[in-house]
Formats: sequence, C-alpha cells, structure tokens
Amino acid sequence: MRILGIDPGSRRTGVAVIAGDAGRPALVWQGVITTPDGDHASRLGVIFGELSELIATHRPDEAAVEEVFVSRNPVSALKLGQARGAALTAIVRAGLEVKAYAPTAVKMALVGRGRADKHQVQHMVRLMLGLTEPLAEDAADALAVAICHYHHRQTARRWQ
Amino acid sequence: MRILGIDPGSRRTGVAVIAGDAGRPALVWQGVITTPDGDHASRLGVIFGELSELIATHRPDEAAVEEVFVSRNPVSALKLGQARGAALTAIVRAGLEVKAYAPTAVKMALVGRGRADKHQVQHMVRLMLGLTEPLAEDAADALAVAICHYHHRQTARRWQ
Repeated sequence: MRILGIDPGSRRTGVAVIAGDAGRPALVWQGVITTPDGDHASRLGVIFGELSELIATHRPDEAAVEEVFVSRNPVSALKLGQARGAALTAIVRAGLEVKAYAPTAVKMALVGRGRADKHQVQHMVRLMLGLTEPLAEDAADALAVAICHYHHRQTARRWQ
Repeated sequence: MRILGIDPGSRRTGVAVIAGDAGRPALVWQGVITTPDGDHASRLGVIFGELSELIATHRPDEAAVEEVFVSRNPVSALKLGQARGAALTAIVRAGLEVKAYAPTAVKMALVGRGRADKHQVQHMVRLMLGLTEPLAEDAADALAVAICHYHHRQTARRWQ
C-alpha cells in the first residue's frame, strides 16, 4: 500500500509518498512544491498541476493531511484554505480518499505523545524511514502525516 | 468576449457567463453549483469538476471573482478559502486569467455607488441583462462581478 501525505501551504506544499504492507514503511518520494511569486490564482494552478503529476507518477492508494487549527487571522486562513483547496482537489480528482488527522494524533503516532516539537517529529520521521539526510520542514510534516495514516491503517487491519 | 463570474462557497458556488463586445452584455448562462453533504474534500472535487465542465461548455475568455474581506472567524475563512481554491484552480487550469474586484468596485459598477444592498444589486443585474425571473442570490453575485469586469474591460478599451 502506498500512502500520500501532504502539508499544503500558499508558498510551499510538502509532499511525501511512503510504501509498506507490514512492519516499517519505506520512503518512495519526498519533496516540496514551491510556487512562484505572482498572483495567487496561478499559484493554485501550480499546486494542483504538480501534485497531480506526482500522484500519476507515484500512484498512491490513499492520502492523508493534517487538520488545521487556525489560530491565526482570517486573511491567513483564507490564503491557506485556497492552497489546501487546490491540493485536496488534485487528490480527490485523482480518485483518492483523503483522511485528515489532528496535529496531536500525528505527534502521538510519531513520538508517542501528543506534544512534541518540530525537531523531535523530524528526528522520528528520519529514524523510522532510515533517512540520513536532513529534510525540508514541509516535507518532514508531509511524511509525518503519511506515517500517522500508515499506523492507523495497520492498527485497523489488526482489529479486523 | 465572454466573461465568467463566480461566487465561490463551500455549499453553493454561483456561476455566470455573459457575452458582449460593445453596449450592454447579454446573459449566456447562470446557475449555482450545489455540493452534497459529506466530507469536505469530495465537495471540492464537485466544485472543480462542475466548474470545469461549465467552462468547457460555455468557453469564456476571461474570469472575475469578488475579493473576500474576511470579517468572520478563521475556521469559516479556511472553509471558504478551500472552496475558492477549488474554483480558482478550475479556472486557472482551463487557461483563463482571473481578476479579483473589491465588493465596493462591484457595487459601484452595478449601482453607481460603493454602498448598496443585495436587493439593489440583484435588481440592477436583472435590469441590465433584461431578466424577468428572480435569481438565486449566489448566481446574482456571480453575474454582478462578471458585469463589473465587463465594464472595466469596456472602459480600458475606450482609453486605448
């Protein structure tokens, strides 16, 4: 099973694909879609287009994204929402289901407790996937939510 | 020239296409994309898919949308942003440029001043297009921003 994880943003969208059927998952691809300066609408086109291509190339079976708890101002929330909208549209149009996880659920799956800083999460992501190179922050977040979904699927399968 | 106007929303997205080269524009199509209950991601897929089909059918040359001044809470802004993201992505992916207008600019173009209530705007939309039937609110808003863009293009052309 291949899982797509995304961490959408207006300027940078983290994308990760992991694979596995039992035990530890393996890295298939990770990277960051960066959008050019310019009008916001064309950025959405870039996010949708590049993510659609990555899905076509790496053929994930399911997708996961972190829920957003917007503590910021409504203007930022609208911008972030538009970027998320473009990314989620690419996923749904590719026929994939997408599951959303609370940030605490992602940290719990990675670090074993609901509170953890970025460094701990990144450290555990690299440890679990056997990566030696440092990761871009957005790619690490995309991998984290993909791993979280993988664990949930494994647990659900054991219960069946 | 054909102009697409949209008024995106999570549950209802107003869509309008008008046509004209000089003088008053004429109505080509107006309606509302309604999204089914269910998860938010699949709603985005519906907005993107139906809007893409409408663009393919009615072949507008340019597109216009109202800017959002989010006075509401960040959670609503995020939801609205996602819907706008799906709609704008459909427009950009169809190769159209999209121009955003402030609500006051739309009212100014329709009613002649920056402050006007929904009823006045709807009244002027129907008068300008010679429509006798009442319009759904979201469709009227989509027509209003399309007419606003049409006027701006006419004015720009006269200056050239």
